[in-house]
Amino acid sequence: MGAIITLTTDFGLQDAYVGMMRGALLSVNPDATVVDITHHLPPHDIPQAAYCIFDAYAYFPSGTVHVVVVDPGVGSDRGIVAMAAGGHFFLAPDNGVLSRFADLEPPPVCVDVRAERFFRASVSRTFHGRDIFAPVAAHLSKGVPLDLLGKEIPFERLVKLRLQAATLTDDGVLEGEIISIDRFGNMISNIHESLFQEYRRRNNAGVTPFRIRIGLSGSFSASCLSDSYQSSAVGAPLIILGSSKRVEIAVREGSAAEFFRAERGDSVRISFSID
Amino acid sequence: MGAIITLTTDFGLQDAYVGMMRGALLSVNPDATVVDITHHLPPHDIPQAAYCIFDAYAYFPSGTVHVVVVDPGVGSDRGIVAMAAGGHFFLAPDNGVLSRFADLEPPPVCVDVRAERFFRASVSRTFHGRDIFAPVAAHLSKGVPLDLLGKEIPFERLVKLRLQAATLTDDGVLEGEIISIDRFGNMISNIHESLFQEYRRRNNAGVTPFRIRIGLSGSFSASCLSDSYQSSAVGAPLIILGSSKRVEIAVREGSAAEFFRAERGDSVRISFSID
Amino acid sequence: MGAIITLTTDFGLQDAYVGMMRGALLSVNPDATVVDITHHLPPHDIPQAAYCIFDAYAYFPSGTVHVVVVDPGVGSDRGIVAMAAGGHFFLAPDNGVLSRFADLEPPPVCVDVRAERFFRASVSRTFHGRDIFAPVAAHLSKGVPLDLLGKEIPFERLVKLRLQAATLTDDGVLEGEIISIDRFGNMISNIHESLFQEYRRRNNAGVTPFRIRIGLSGSFSASCLSDSYQSSAVGAPLIILGSSKRVEIAVREGSAAEFFRAERGDSVRISFSID
Repeated sequence: MGAIITLTTDFGLQDAYVGMMRGALLSVNPDATVVDITHHLPPHDIPQAAYCIFDAYAYFPSGTVHVVVVDPGVGSDRGIVAMAAGGHFFLAPDNGVLSRFADLEPPPVCVDVRAERFFRASVSRTFHGRDIFAPVAAHLSKGVPLDLLGKEIPFERLVKLRLQAATLTDDGVLEGEIISIDRFGNMISNIHESLFQEYRRRNNAGVTPFRIRIGLSGSFSASCLSDSYQSSAVGAPLIILGSSKRVEIAVREGSAAEFFRAERGDSVRISFSID
Repeated sequence: MGAIITLTTDFGLQDAYVGMMRGALLSVNPDATVVDITHHLPPHDIPQAAYCIFDAYAYFPSGTVHVVVVDPGVGSDRGIVAMAAGGHFFLAPDNGVLSRFADLEPPPVCVDVRAERFFRASVSRTFHGRDIFAPVAAHLSKGVPLDLLGKEIPFERLVKLRLQAATLTDDGVLEGEIISIDRFGNMISNIHESLFQEYRRRNNAGVTPFRIRIGLSGSFSASCLSDSYQSSAVGAPLIILGSSKRVEIAVREGSAAEFFRAERGDSVRISFSID
Repeated sequence: MGAIITLTTDFGLQDAYVGMMRGALLSVNPDATVVDITHHLPPHDIPQAAYCIFDAYAYFPSGTVHVVVVDPGVGSDRGIVAMAAGGHFFLAPDNGVLSRFADLEPPPVCVDVRAERFFRASVSRTFHGRDIFAPVAAHLSKGVPLDLLGKEIPFERLVKLRLQAATLTDDGVLEGEIISIDRFGNMISNIHESLFQEYRRRNNAGVTPFRIRIGLSGSFSASCLSDSYQSSAVGAPLIILGSSKRVEIAVREGSAAEFFRAERGDSVRISFSID
């Protein structure tokens, strides 16, 4: 079965953990194509994992099995969830990493994974990625139906993150935060394209330039969203619609994060009012 | 031939070395599935490579070809070994990286790889990973038998590392060392589960708490092995049986290595005596 | 179609970018074997990318599709080139990354990629790697001919880097520069084997030792090219012919870059004159 299985973890690549997981996957389904989404999520960073898998899954063919292992609770009584959503399958600890699938239509179908016959014969206390997630994912990729893995559990009953949405404040400011900083130093906000465009329409934008404030100190003005990372002067900041349809702040041929000395979690406020 | 070939090296991923090796592998066997165990072994660190391949190989399907290239002696007169052991194949420089297979039953079968017709037509002085190991491994994965690669050489004649085992000292202390620190800061010792359990039985454990000393300064007490990384208070140390069946010291939601300012090679001493 | 597609980018692995690209590739050609050459090129470093792909491509089977995405001009009016050269296919922004293929015989055949029916339905401004390069490469790997992608463009009309060649100066010095420093601290120069050997012949080498100067301060003498990294004393420098047939400076069991406090771009001067 030439199925595709993706891996999203906080394991890094310096240890043999990812290699062992791949071995365990291939031991059950030698024909699977195993693809890394990333293994460099910050250790134990469930919110970042939740963004990562939600942003990436739809670029894979439907039927792909996505395994997410950011799992500080490994070996405790936290559950394991298998989920069908959007034509894809997901396998993850029940710790909030699947929170962002809440608005999918039709709603996700989940099971509480308990069927030990799909686990490795010997399960360690500390590495369920290898001993449970990998073999179960490989069985899923071979066509084992969800309901053989455990009892159905409503998506609403899964552990959820409190998701902080960008908002339009009463005094006319579009307020969000930096949710990630990529390798290039680009700062990706949680302000979705649709919200930004709505805000623009309301404020007669295209006429007035807007002002972007990052955290407590940094700020700059822009008359419009840039068309490319080369739309500003070299070393100057710009605002652009990123590849996950979120508003992004960049510096041409430089790092916006360094330019603004900003960190993930810093606020991003956009306003048309002059002040 | 949809065979599996694993790679374990100290090449890192910033250069094109691993990519070239994969090209050389696929040039001989385009149907091979090539899997990274890790490329981030510390440069020239043969002892770490020896742990890595020995801990990881058995998670792959039998018949897998494992290539280990930590090879400070490349281009010198060091030999190259192909080995069949535990239903798997191994290809490595004869420099000690296969030392940990000594106790396998039946014992490993080795050959001294010399058959240049399985090498690249042009062999560089500095990159046998690409020019010898990769093509030979690909031929192995296509079913070329070991004895076509060179003459048999007894496993005993391979270069060996002096392996430092954990021991039970005369004054009743279980003494080992930290053999690796993983991405999470967990410290993995060379104290195997079986030795620890034997020590516990002898000392009527379950009644007396034991004391763990790390290096010269750090220490803590524990009444038992933890069930999960969440069995201590946040930020507090715990002792747990790791995924390679070795005693491991961790800190809940933190880094044990930072907590104890410990390094690989530091001693780990466990005692039930109160002092 | 079990074709091979390689990826060479400056994306790093900490974000989901490479994973998304692989998803986009597999969505078009689920049977492709996707191989990373490297994703750790310094951000926006077109010269380094040009060396990397030129040095690595020939180790893959002919017919391989090589995708190079170091693309600071993404979203601007820079073009995209598909190229057939040396029996391989290449897909890259028209920004100089393919400069080193100038001397290939027969000369490369290039097209200016414009056929949007091979792109993703929705193309972002900032991530053509996922939205254009990946799907186009996957179509190439399935046998779509170059001329369906766009109009032919002569190789001479592509954007080119000014390539700095090593030279023999009037006062008898072989002068080049460090073009990369690898993970081990080995310093790879742009002095090709053939130039070095020619210089040696002219200067009656094998009799006189030569002197190697690195940058402004460091220097050492050598009587010959070393046979292996173990040909000097531990910690001492040596000169060796590297795996891409370029003269390389190394330190046995150490880092030449640290030893000489050298950086990429530093000059390398070799002379037989005593001074």
